[in-house]
Amino acid sequence: MIKLYGMTGSGNCWKPAVLMTMLGIAFEHVEIDMLGGETRRAPFLALNPNGRVPLLQLGDGRLLAESNAMLCYLAEGSALLPPPGFDRAKVLEWMFFEQYSHEPYIASVRFWIHYRHKREEWRDKIAEASSKGHAALAVMETALAKQAYLAGSTFSIADIALYAYTHVADQGDFDLSPYPAVLAWLQRCEQQPGFFSMR
Amino acid sequence: MIKLYGMTGSGNCWKPAVLMTMLGIAFEHVEIDMLGGETRRAPFLALNPNGRVPLLQLGDGRLLAESNAMLCYLAEGSALLPPPGFDRAKVLEWMFFEQYSHEPYIASVRFWIHYRHKREEWRDKIAEASSKGHAALAVMETALAKQAYLAGSTFSIADIALYAYTHVADQGDFDLSPYPAVLAWLQRCEQQPGFFSMR
Repeated sequence: MIKLYGMTGSGNCWKPAVLMTMLGIAFEHVEIDMLGGETRRAPFLALNPNGRVPLLQLGDGRLLAESNAMLCYLAEGSALLPPPGFDRAKVLEWMFFEQYSHEPYIASVRFWIHYRHKREEWRDKIAEASSKGHAALAVMETALAKQAYLAGSTFSIADIALYAYTHVADQGDFDLSPYPAVLAWLQRCEQQPGFFSMR
Repeated sequence: MIKLYGMTGSGNCWKPAVLMTMLGIAFEHVEIDMLGGETRRAPFLALNPNGRVPLLQLGDGRLLAESNAMLCYLAEGSALLPPPGFDRAKVLEWMFFEQYSHEPYIASVRFWIHYRHKREEWRDKIAEASSKGHAALAVMETALAKQAYLAGSTFSIADIALYAYTHVADQGDFDLSPYPAVLAWLQRCEQQPGFFSMR
């Protein structure tokens, strides 16, 4: 059976879990104490030299890191990932956007405030990252004002990738009320069969 | 004909250019004055609301952002991207690693030092990012000590994605001599048919 090494509360770890649930793929969750430093100690580093969760282990022992690579691998052949071509490229575009322009700001600020309790101590750093997080939300709003889902008219793994930290952005003090199309999209995601949120 | 909006000297913009050259795909390069703010002004934002280069425009006008999404799209069906399955997932793993754990540190420090001339002024910020950049190089070294290319025994778009900023890391004061497997890999990349570097 597939093993998913992850940390409860991590949006990146939630992504493959919700996808496997939606697709009916059985898996075992292995909780990793990231806050306690487990991802940076030798036994875990032997599995993932980059020292991060989530980490997926197939039944035959092969290992795959990077949440969005897992989504692509697991969704192949399903309706959640278009076949090779331009529509698939747009899904990937949003997934790279998520890891470069969204997660480093929205997930990081949430982590600093919600898990590390640094709201006051790291005020300047949080303000700078929050501004970039809002820029990412504005890009999503522009797209979602025109279409139901990020990569077009149908729900895809791009929506799973971006839902992850957007739906808990308030834990990083992000106010989503200026983004009505994003708020409506969050609700549409939640109506997908088999979907669950971290809330 | 395909248009590639990009900035000379940007590793992200170099990626689709080298791939199209290797694959014999004709394209027109459109230079964008990123340093002069062109990516943040209305005409360019109308093309890419995320305000970044590279941006790929197909002959029919369709637009694709995110350098690594372009690599996946353009390499489909070629020997540089394995067919769907685990080998492809490993290619994607390295490409997401590049955008999350490598580029934000190695490309950013290079940009601050080589283009913005902030070596002294931003000393602390550079030290922090450099440390994370070295962590990424160490992850690459671990993989490349075991296999010829990042995702296995054959050259793939994962190698293009990581070559981009690794081969100019010295412009961000990164010393690659502690990473002999990375240095040997850079040379192997440069021997690929049609390959060119930014140097």
